[in-house]
Amino acid sequence: MNRREFYLSLLGVTSAFRSSFAQSTTGLRVRSERVNAHLAELSAFGKNPQGGVSRLAYTDADLKAREYAMKLMREAKLSVNIDAAGNIVGRRTGSDPSLKPLVVGSHIDSVPEGGNYDGDVGSMGAIEVAQTLEENNVRLRHALEVIVFQNEEGGTIGSHAIAAGLTEQELNLVANSKKTIREGIKFIGGDVGKLATMVRKPGDIAGYLELHIEQGGILDAEKISIGVVEGIVGINWWEVNVEGFANHAGTTPMNQRRDALLAAAKYVEVVNRVVTSVPGRQVGTVGKIQAFPGAFNVIPGKVTTSLGLRDLDAAKTRMLFEKIQAEVLQIEKETGTKFEFKQTNSTPPAPTDVRVQRVIDESAKQLGFTTKLMPSGAGHDAQEMAHLGPIGMIFIPSVDGISHSPREFSRPQDIANGANVLLHTLLKLDQNVP
Amino acid sequence: MNRREFYLSLLGVTSAFRSSFAQSTTGLRVRSERVNAHLAELSAFGKNPQGGVSRLAYTDADLKAREYAMKLMREAKLSVNIDAAGNIVGRRTGSDPSLKPLVVGSHIDSVPEGGNYDGDVGSMGAIEVAQTLEENNVRLRHALEVIVFQNEEGGTIGSHAIAAGLTEQELNLVANSKKTIREGIKFIGGDVGKLATMVRKPGDIAGYLELHIEQGGILDAEKISIGVVEGIVGINWWEVNVEGFANHAGTTPMNQRRDALLAAAKYVEVVNRVVTSVPGRQVGTVGKIQAFPGAFNVIPGKVTTSLGLRDLDAAKTRMLFEKIQAEVLQIEKETGTKFEFKQTNSTPPAPTDVRVQRVIDESAKQLGFTTKLMPSGAGHDAQEMAHLGPIGMIFIPSVDGISHSPREFSRPQDIANGANVLLHTLLKLDQNVP
Repeated sequence: MNRREFYLSLLGVTSAFRSSFAQSTTGLRVRSERVNAHLAELSAFGKNPQGGVSRLAYTDADLKAREYAMKLMREAKLSVNIDAAGNIVGRRTGSDPSLKPLVVGSHIDSVPEGGNYDGDVGSMGAIEVAQTLEENNVRLRHALEVIVFQNEEGGTIGSHAIAAGLTEQELNLVANSKKTIREGIKFIGGDVGKLATMVRKPGDIAGYLELHIEQGGILDAEKISIGVVEGIVGINWWEVNVEGFANHAGTTPMNQRRDALLAAAKYVEVVNRVVTSVPGRQVGTVGKIQAFPGAFNVIPGKVTTSLGLRDLDAAKTRMLFEKIQAEVLQIEKETGTKFEFKQTNSTPPAPTDVRVQRVIDESAKQLGFTTKLMPSGAGHDAQEMAHLGPIGMIFIPSVDGISHSPREFSRPQDIANGANVLLHTLLKLDQNVP
Repeated sequence: MNRREFYLSLLGVTSAFRSSFAQSTTGLRVRSERVNAHLAELSAFGKNPQGGVSRLAYTDADLKAREYAMKLMREAKLSVNIDAAGNIVGRRTGSDPSLKPLVVGSHIDSVPEGGNYDGDVGSMGAIEVAQTLEENNVRLRHALEVIVFQNEEGGTIGSHAIAAGLTEQELNLVANSKKTIREGIKFIGGDVGKLATMVRKPGDIAGYLELHIEQGGILDAEKISIGVVEGIVGINWWEVNVEGFANHAGTTPMNQRRDALLAAAKYVEVVNRVVTSVPGRQVGTVGKIQAFPGAFNVIPGKVTTSLGLRDLDAAKTRMLFEKIQAEVLQIEKETGTKFEFKQTNSTPPAPTDVRVQRVIDESAKQLGFTTKLMPSGAGHDAQEMAHLGPIGMIFIPSVDGISHSPREFSRPQDIANGANVLLHTLLKLDQNVP
């Protein structure tokens, strides 16, 4: 019996009350037309003529969208603050002030030429859940925090500021908006001087939930309504440099070349072959390449390229990287070139809480939805929040798996379904987590 | 018997005279220390701190180098003019005004971060030959024109203006200096309004000779002094676009990708394999590549790349291109991508005159040098002049075959050797061509 149960027992309030309360919220539903209307209104900020949005963090479009989100939060009777890092935090008090808050959230910044669902669905969904609770006079035991994290697309900056703090080096990074993180935080109303005071410790939250589009095509292809995320894959990025020897493309015989691009081409094929050579859902991508000097008539002397490897299992990622390295040694020999790998990102896998997974699955099934346990191949603010308490993520289908594109699309019904699963998962957690 | 021979026969001047004249010039030699000193002085214009020069056409460095070349021409008693296209033409009258001029020349503009030999050796060598004739009171039958062509590195612009004229489209091209060709011509003292009047017709020159560094490593590797160029290879360039589908690198399973970079990598390997699959000296190069959007976390939806094919035999180039195309069809099927080839350059092979080849070879051997018949893999002003009359090119070794680089180097002795071969080839042609 915790302190609250003790007091409640004094008042003769028993667990029977809590179960009857749970009973009374079973029929609760978000308003589909409202949350979808909010998504449509949000899409105006940073709208591109060819569809979708470019709503980079720390731009005017971002600022206007944030004002809009704060307006919605206030309509949902949340008390709204901008924290020192510039995250928008809407708070609703709980009935038991001794409990740590339950947090729901996502982001509203986008990639360049992005879509209207990545982040937006989870943000509008979280506000919709708060609004639904408010309209139905449902008071949770825990305080509820709805957070719109800043600059998720630039590397989960806002949630990182909460979970770990931002280093000087991170503050000096230049974001896609061309502002440094430091300038960006000031631009959106944060206070860099107070960043240290806002960092939370493990145990500071009772739990974290995030609704998000899948960004892959699995739920859509398999016609499943709800994805229960088993974890966010680890992300490893390397800058890769290939050094050959630049020479005249007309006068250098084929057998006297040290062609950095030929070597890089072999490398790109190796990455694909190695990653697909073992069973599993791991992915490997070469997303960048550029040859220098980059002229018709010069054999490339240098190529800059990249490597990205993702999996839920860090050991498997390591094994794949080692296999790639071994093949690269062969390429170096064959082509007379030299490769250099410089790791620029190493985010470990973030498993979600198994009990929270179970509650999401149960809530979805009670609402009549099919579910599937799946990894998140993309990074999310949830991976930062995992440092502070148990997390869960709810995925809804993304048509054709398209994401980070103006063609990104999730059906209004799926969005409402996801918000309802978020609502009921939250209600259940509120009853069951300390 | 032509008119000149008729008059000479009236005067009792026989071919015996001409052969005794030839005798008297057999011992003629250029001054090695002078031509090498001129090269060293020329290297000051556009000098880079890390070595070599950036002497792009139409820049201040180019202008100063041109003034220097004109000063040397005047010292060699050439009468100097800048033609309408901005080429520097130094003229020495011949004894027979009825004959068309013999032309020797090259260029002094460089690529960005280029070296001190490509073009410079031929330009300083040509002036040295004129100076040697002058000092030794050798009067040729033909007028001699020493031409320093403008903007060779930007696509043999100056020689093209002489051999074919410049179109409006060509005048509007933006050169590496950021000036248009039109602006560039004005900048170096040409007169765009008079371009049409300077175009020459086939037969307007008695012949053209160009001394040049090999720009490949064959003469250096085989320790041969003089390359007798059998022709300038045809150059074919294509811009190549690969369309795939951009998608999230974390969430898109490996088997659902249409990765434009994976397709491009296979293509780069195909080019190398096809070009090396048949015997011969053909070369094929992919010099450019860039992936879009070009991010760690996005599967490339588009790649822009290139193709360059060169050979003396146009039919062989065509065959190689068709083989590459056939393999690309396979790649498109395997990867779900689409390739597009857009030809941006199609310079036909320019064979040198077989009689001139023979005279170069004979002159070199009489001077005690080893020779090798070889193609020029690089383009030269000679290929333009080939439209006007018989051409010949003399190559000297380029150490390690390095070119278009600050590390470009030819030995002073090889430079003097080349200039002496140029001198004696010119003397022989003067006697033997009409």
